[in-house]
Amino acid sequence: MSIEKLKARLELEMDSLQQSENLFKVLEEGFADKRLYGIFLTETFHYTFHNSRNQAMVAARRDTMNINYMKYCLKHAGEEAGHEMMAFHDLKNLGFEAKVEDLPKPLKTTQALIAYLYYVAEYGNPVARLGYSFWAERSYEYIQPILKLLSEGLDVGKKSMTFFNEHSEIDVQHAIDVENAISKYAKTEQDWKDIEDCMVNSLLLTTRMMDEVLDEFVKVKEDKDSRYKFLS
Amino acid sequence: MSIEKLKARLELEMDSLQQSENLFKVLEEGFADKRLYGIFLTETFHYTFHNSRNQAMVAARRDTMNINYMKYCLKHAGEEAGHEMMAFHDLKNLGFEAKVEDLPKPLKTTQALIAYLYYVAEYGNPVARLGYSFWAERSYEYIQPILKLLSEGLDVGKKSMTFFNEHSEIDVQHAIDVENAISKYAKTEQDWKDIEDCMVNSLLLTTRMMDEVLDEFVKVKEDKDSRYKFLS
Amino acid sequence: MSIEKLKARLELEMDSLQQSENLFKVLEEGFADKRLYGIFLTETFHYTFHNSRNQAMVAARRDTMNINYMKYCLKHAGEEAGHEMMAFHDLKNLGFEAKVEDLPKPLKTTQALIAYLYYVAEYGNPVARLGYSFWAERSYEYIQPILKLLSEGLDVGKKSMTFFNEHSEIDVQHAIDVENAISKYAKTEQDWKDIEDCMVNSLLLTTRMMDEVLDEFVKVKEDKDSRYKFLS
Amino acid sequence: MSIEKLKARLELEMDSLQQSENLFKVLEEGFADKRLYGIFLTETFHYTFHNSRNQAMVAARRDTMNINYMKYCLKHAGEEAGHEMMAFHDLKNLGFEAKVEDLPKPLKTTQALIAYLYYVAEYGNPVARLGYSFWAERSYEYIQPILKLLSEGLDVGKKSMTFFNEHSEIDVQHAIDVENAISKYAKTEQDWKDIEDCMVNSLLLTTRMMDEVLDEFVKVKEDKDSRYKFLS
Repeated sequence: MSIEKLKARLELEMDSLQQSENLFKVLEEGFADKRLYGIFLTETFHYTFHNSRNQAMVAARRDTMNINYMKYCLKHAGEEAGHEMMAFHDLKNLGFEAKVEDLPKPLKTTQALIAYLYYVAEYGNPVARLGYSFWAERSYEYIQPILKLLSEGLDVGKKSMTFFNEHSEIDVQHAIDVENAISKYAKTEQDWKDIEDCMVNSLLLTTRMMDEVLDEFVKVKEDKDSRYKFLS
Repeated sequence: MSIEKLKARLELEMDSLQQSENLFKVLEEGFADKRLYGIFLTETFHYTFHNSRNQAMVAARRDTMNINYMKYCLKHAGEEAGHEMMAFHDLKNLGFEAKVEDLPKPLKTTQALIAYLYYVAEYGNPVARLGYSFWAERSYEYIQPILKLLSEGLDVGKKSMTFFNEHSEIDVQHAIDVENAISKYAKTEQDWKDIEDCMVNSLLLTTRMMDEVLDEFVKVKEDKDSRYKFLS
Repeated sequence: MSIEKLKARLELEMDSLQQSENLFKVLEEGFADKRLYGIFLTETFHYTFHNSRNQAMVAARRDTMNINYMKYCLKHAGEEAGHEMMAFHDLKNLGFEAKVEDLPKPLKTTQALIAYLYYVAEYGNPVARLGYSFWAERSYEYIQPILKLLSEGLDVGKKSMTFFNEHSEIDVQHAIDVENAISKYAKTEQDWKDIEDCMVNSLLLTTRMMDEVLDEFVKVKEDKDSRYKFLS
Repeated sequence: MSIEKLKARLELEMDSLQQSENLFKVLEEGFADKRLYGIFLTETFHYTFHNSRNQAMVAARRDTMNINYMKYCLKHAGEEAGHEMMAFHDLKNLGFEAKVEDLPKPLKTTQALIAYLYYVAEYGNPVARLGYSFWAERSYEYIQPILKLLSEGLDVGKKSMTFFNEHSEIDVQHAIDVENAISKYAKTEQDWKDIEDCMVNSLLLTTRMMDEVLDEFVKVKEDKDSRYKFLS
């Protein structure tokens, strides 16, 4: 396999996701709501809390034997540490009052994403998690249009978009780093295949999270649910 | 508690260990043998293999909540990654032929040390592992005299002493970093106590490893044992 | 909350799933194929391999403090141990030649299910996994009609249906045991809520697995995929 | 290797331990003290709390592949669950007032024992933990004389000796079960060797715990220490 094939597969998946993407469609139709963005940020806070940790887990394994790859994982984990707080601050800058410890627990689809990434990090092929980084660090390509729709529809301004804006800028370099890392540490066809699997699987689980975000927003809007009561 | 009290306790423990220290006494009596140093390096290879990993484990825990402490752990883990290979190269430079995969498994006391450090890293107070770093990064103070005795007795030269020499130089800075980290991240008396416990316990387990190294050497010398047959 | 409310929620979820259930619809339309059943058994083998293990994990946790609950988990884990071999033998009795080690790796949705159950078992509320048992042990109610459709459509006979038949019989008792266990060990509203979350989430992930089973079957039928080549 | 060789090695180790055994000597000299027994019971409470859990961990591993061995581990874990409470009740029957949550934390040697058993259970050869059971279930042979000395010296009576008395009776059957399990599940020379290593190592760590129990008693007696203040 190769980086090019991985990119081709990612584009294929992204296309197919965007066709069915409820959240994207809702935003395209000119609809936006601070509470929708608030729910999105809450879930972003949750999975991001674990990203540095599951990345560190790869280096803590006894069977991650490549020393340079260990160092790559540790460096990357260090760079991601604490990024959940950006999402939290954006939430506060939207005008919502909440303490970290009072946020609602992660949605079930968010839990499934978190669980999967620890599983890959702890028990999968040690290089597989690179598949998650591969699309996550490039996600700004796909997220920028959503962000634009969000910020036009809402009147949120840049101070509530630090998580996504910062990640877009940081991640251009990261995206190159990840490509280099994959080229360097994927040695066998099985390695490439496990990286591709992790890419597709974590992308799918993220999409499902976005679908549930929209479902939850509908409940909030219709006053049906108390999970996100701090948003009302 | 304070750094000073921690140092005082360490000196107390070191004094008491050095009085009973078989390995130290053997070396002081002018006795040295390449095979003794070879066994020491083999066990050093084993526990060092896990040092970066158990350090990373602290950052991978869901309940290590201080982001700066996470970053400290990840940075430190990155600096320690692969240091076991220094011990391995020293072993080869002593003239012993072995592949990494053919080295004898760790001694039972080495296993106990490795097990304890993972236990602390995974289940103990998240800051406790600093107690291990505290004495390990300062160990050159105590190890230099042993090294001197070893190198005078043997004719090994610097090329077989990279692990200990490098660590002496690197670790002056590390020792300061660890003191700063303890001052910064130990917030409660319980934190200080858990750091002290980890310091005393890991030092004791290391001493027992050194005792068993000597026991094993006696067996090798008397041709009783095949564990370290590559040394003969 | 109460057992009754849990049952009501389960029925609600089951209804909504069965409406959208592709696999169920395909079977209802009178369509059946040994290869479809073969893919289903392969994935059943995979997740069942982990059921006893993630159940044992609950008892291995340091924070599962109720001794009777520990014993319940251990007994249940013992009863589930090795059940994956029933699925494997059914596969062989269908006429497919394969060794356990040659089976294709779990599908991405199967991996997500496995990952989630370990996550709940290791890091969730210690009683939460009862929510998985609650629907899994009652699933014969929902699975019997599917089984009937499968066995009528196919000519597979009872010898290829031991996994589902055996589980139907065993599980009547288990279903009662699980209800009793939930009544006994769920002490707080949060406990009930976490049990319900685990029930809904694991059911959803299982449904997604069944959807992907159908997708994979379509690929096999159209000769597009080599993952299940032993079925051709 | 064989059960006989394992027994011979155990006797050799026991002899060598009993010669150096401070606790045993102290008791032999006719000295006994309720507080000594109280410290012993406190540490027994701690390591016993983890015995069922680390036994369950062996069955929770993805690489414990023998289904009968999994069932053996789960059954054994179920039988050991909650035995720490016997030690706790004995402590109360000695006349000491304490709640479980107020007991002093485990001694450093007790921590090293606990850490080692989890390490073997989680990362060692899956059959290795049988080496711990092998000597622990037979320990009544060695412990009965100590118990006799303790109960003659003290006036504690049977109601404070349930942990050791019960284990003596239960463990005759368990000792046979363990021998059978070893004969059945140790397939290779490496399996036998890893079982032997675990036997010797866990016995040694237990002995060190007993030495520290005595050291702590001396401190209590000399009013130096507050760790066990509930004993005064």
